[in-house]
Amino acid sequence: MEEVVKDSKPLILITNDDGIFAKGIKELVKSVKDLGEVWIVAPDKAQSGKGHAVTLDTPLWYRPYKFEEDVRAFKGSGTPADCIKFALFRILDRKPDLILSGINHGSNSSVNILYSGTMGAAMEGSLHKIPSIGFSLLNFFPDSDFTTAGLYARQITQKVLKMQDSSGICLNVNIPYNDPENIKGIKLCRQSAGEWREFFEERFHPSNRRPYYWLTGSYYNQEPQAEDTDEWALANGYVSIQPVTCDCTDYKTMEKLQIGVEGF
Amino acid sequence: MEEVVKDSKPLILITNDDGIFAKGIKELVKSVKDLGEVWIVAPDKAQSGKGHAVTLDTPLWYRPYKFEEDVRAFKGSGTPADCIKFALFRILDRKPDLILSGINHGSNSSVNILYSGTMGAAMEGSLHKIPSIGFSLLNFFPDSDFTTAGLYARQITQKVLKMQDSSGICLNVNIPYNDPENIKGIKLCRQSAGEWREFFEERFHPSNRRPYYWLTGSYYNQEPQAEDTDEWALANGYVSIQPVTCDCTDYKTMEKLQIGVEGF
Repeated sequence: MEEVVKDSKPLILITNDDGIFAKGIKELVKSVKDLGEVWIVAPDKAQSGKGHAVTLDTPLWYRPYKFEEDVRAFKGSGTPADCIKFALFRILDRKPDLILSGINHGSNSSVNILYSGTMGAAMEGSLHKIPSIGFSLLNFFPDSDFTTAGLYARQITQKVLKMQDSSGICLNVNIPYNDPENIKGIKLCRQSAGEWREFFEERFHPSNRRPYYWLTGSYYNQEPQAEDTDEWALANGYVSIQPVTCDCTDYKTMEKLQIGVEGF
Repeated sequence: MEEVVKDSKPLILITNDDGIFAKGIKELVKSVKDLGEVWIVAPDKAQSGKGHAVTLDTPLWYRPYKFEEDVRAFKGSGTPADCIKFALFRILDRKPDLILSGINHGSNSSVNILYSGTMGAAMEGSLHKIPSIGFSLLNFFPDSDFTTAGLYARQITQKVLKMQDSSGICLNVNIPYNDPENIKGIKLCRQSAGEWREFFEERFHPSNRRPYYWLTGSYYNQEPQAEDTDEWALANGYVSIQPVTCDCTDYKTMEKLQIGVEGF
């Protein structure tokens, strides 16, 4: 009887890109654990900046991992997108009702979505028509306070579970680093146009003196005045939700080019 | 005097994801070399499947590389997107007029764009408002015949140079593996909806007998009948051009959710 009840719970698959040991994934699990049957398949180390990368040139290692009671977990060598694939095609015997990724340490607003392993995993879920949500907290510190983020992660998870979506809706949720009472609410947003202006810091190898470089940079918002963007929402104290598509087609440009297609 | 003429030529930055030693990048350079001042910054090894990943957790190594006469080249340890960043912010002293990526060994149509290092590099260029084109040939073999691909790469490059675009137009060009006379033409296309259904092949380490897995799978087209997609164009003998955006916002879903936003 207990088994039947258990099976009727929604299956929630969780991953992240900061690795299975990160505080963010623990807080996410804590926030949603009672909402379904939780499975974790997550990287065994930090995989930040991996975007939607998959591992083709190396074999993948996955092992059961003791995360906590009532949560079945695996850790492995793959990227966040690999973790979703491995979970769907090798571990789980039914399709998850929901995929959650995070809670990421650091923002995935604006163009950061393109570099984000957290969102790469969520987008991978969406490709398989599974509703998928990436959560990110606007604070990089390993021991950040996830109280506010956890509350919103739970609320948004409940909402999406209720939708019973089968189209593979994908959401990029970013949460300001603030107390719950200082959050103004939730705003549905489009992705702000922006870019990273990079600075490659040059250093020299201690033995052979050859130069190497660290990628660092500053984010530049190309439209700081636009009030419908995620950057604006976050700067003004809102939780931002960006609905995400995996269709990269630029339809506006397609229309413009179609007129002159003979020229190609 | 010679210097002045040289400087007035458009600056064309080239990278790829199969590595600087691959046949595809050599053929691309050959095809467009006389159209501008060509610089290459490319990975020192294959970087397939790396998507838009960037390298944050390891230092990057870049070195000048003797590619061929009249072409200044660097190879390095970074992903294709890293290569573009390194070229723009560390090597070049002016903004390129065009970024080319490829010619990739294998298709980047449909959802493959999300996993593609070739297209990650092109999208990175587009973020900095530089027109960027990724070229891919529908053949995986290292010694593929790139004659047809080279012809189309040249034709499309010339066309885009003429546009003098400053908005950062981005194109995903896929070329069937066929003789020029058997190509039906060029089609502007949207990205076909699809997914990879994965098979993780299990093997065992020769010494410790622990299992590891190779990611393999089959592509499944979710809309084989749709004649406006890249998959259809390629299956029917056309070169496909997909205009690409870096804005991942799903505007249709945003509209639907906006109505019920109170619920969040």
